[in-house]
Amino acid sequence: MKPLMSAMSPHEVRQLIRKGQITGPTAGLAASYAQANLVILKKESAFDFLLFCQRNQKPCPVLDVTEAGSPVPAIAAPGADIRTDFPKYRIYQHGVLTEEAADITPYWKDDFVGFLIGCSFSFEQALINHQIPVRHIEEGLNVPMYKTDIDCVPAGPFSGKMVVSMRPVPERQAVRAAQVTSRFPAVHGGPVHIGNPKGIGISDLDKPDFGDAVTVREGEVPVFWACGVTPQAVVMEAKPDIVITHSPGHMLITDIQNESLAIL
Amino acid sequence: MKPLMSAMSPHEVRQLIRKGQITGPTAGLAASYAQANLVILKKESAFDFLLFCQRNQKPCPVLDVTEAGSPVPAIAAPGADIRTDFPKYRIYQHGVLTEEAADITPYWKDDFVGFLIGCSFSFEQALINHQIPVRHIEEGLNVPMYKTDIDCVPAGPFSGKMVVSMRPVPERQAVRAAQVTSRFPAVHGGPVHIGNPKGIGISDLDKPDFGDAVTVREGEVPVFWACGVTPQAVVMEAKPDIVITHSPGHMLITDIQNESLAIL
Repeated sequence: MKPLMSAMSPHEVRQLIRKGQITGPTAGLAASYAQANLVILKKESAFDFLLFCQRNQKPCPVLDVTEAGSPVPAIAAPGADIRTDFPKYRIYQHGVLTEEAADITPYWKDDFVGFLIGCSFSFEQALINHQIPVRHIEEGLNVPMYKTDIDCVPAGPFSGKMVVSMRPVPERQAVRAAQVTSRFPAVHGGPVHIGNPKGIGISDLDKPDFGDAVTVREGEVPVFWACGVTPQAVVMEAKPDIVITHSPGHMLITDIQNESLAIL
Repeated sequence: MKPLMSAMSPHEVRQLIRKGQITGPTAGLAASYAQANLVILKKESAFDFLLFCQRNQKPCPVLDVTEAGSPVPAIAAPGADIRTDFPKYRIYQHGVLTEEAADITPYWKDDFVGFLIGCSFSFEQALINHQIPVRHIEEGLNVPMYKTDIDCVPAGPFSGKMVVSMRPVPERQAVRAAQVTSRFPAVHGGPVHIGNPKGIGISDLDKPDFGDAVTVREGEVPVFWACGVTPQAVVMEAKPDIVITHSPGHMLITDIQNESLAIL
């Protein structure tokens, strides 16, 4: 079934998700299209959050922002509905996770603004196309993610440390991995760090703060990219009345071709 | 005097501007540092304008956004004051130019938000470093700018056509010009069009809508880049109560090195 789904159109996949026929993680679906993370906030917080994203583009690359009250991401996926087209959502009230849901229509308000944020799936495809291994995919795990000591640039109530994802890369391919991903600033861009984890405040690669630990083989170097978990962590820290996000790994398939995000 | 000024620090140049000892265009000053365009709006319009910039990053690459009421661009030039450190400003009320001033302190309001927008001076330096001629500099003219038929993606009250700047490039260097400037998405990035002006709705290269016509020599092709005049034109069109911009060519010298804006 997986190979067929990887070849489906974004619209077809979204329809299956909307009907509840796909309920799991979206990795590998409609493989050549960009997937998006979600943060929904009240309009009153939208300027500060957009400014946070503008000031921290590596962890927070914005693909689309919905009009207040509209569930349609008119630029990234004009036929989609952000209330139903992610397989799973998380609802947080005052910074506390209160519910997971497959459909947030009952919670939708006229002053909600949805932010679609680029995802590393897009550049992982580019790495694979260049024969650079992506370990967590090979091992069937979630990518390991770590809190760093790198400060984000604050905006209004939003501030915090950058979260990074890590992929072990054979030493001889590390420069190529940096080159390949630098082409994609709209989906986190080039790495923020190569090598020594302590250099960015990570004490133990075997104990990621999110996701799963992966094998780092002899002759491989850890390569760290800014991660889309950063904006979610920062929003939680600000503890707004209500914020809705996607559940990790359960993304929206956009109509944007990964390759169209390359700047050269 | 010019060579000395090109080697001055951004801080030194800003001090001379603030004291009224530099009153003219800023081209060539502190040459390795990025210069910025300015749009000041009321806070109530800031979200829509920031969203317009996010949706139209090629013409509107944001370098910094000031906190409401603060004249300090804390990221791009922490020691600067956007009320005094541009040599000349334009004040528009309801879309009409009402005054030019060298100091806008008397007009400053607690709800003003300043947007600093990247400028093509940064990539022109990169072109020159690659021995690609920049005709309007050679001819001592302003860069020619044209309204196109390319629609910007609207946001709130802000919408309109993209304005582009044009530089004639020898045919054999056109690809290199595209490569060199693609490294700089924060200052307009790669060209939006190469060749036939009519392809983007420009009827006569000799009649630019802004700036000066320049010579296009035999064997040269016109290359068009998204232009920072776009956001100003779009804001004028929306006719807010008040908007303050820099006067064309009279920019802020930031503390950002041009090369640091390259993404690879």
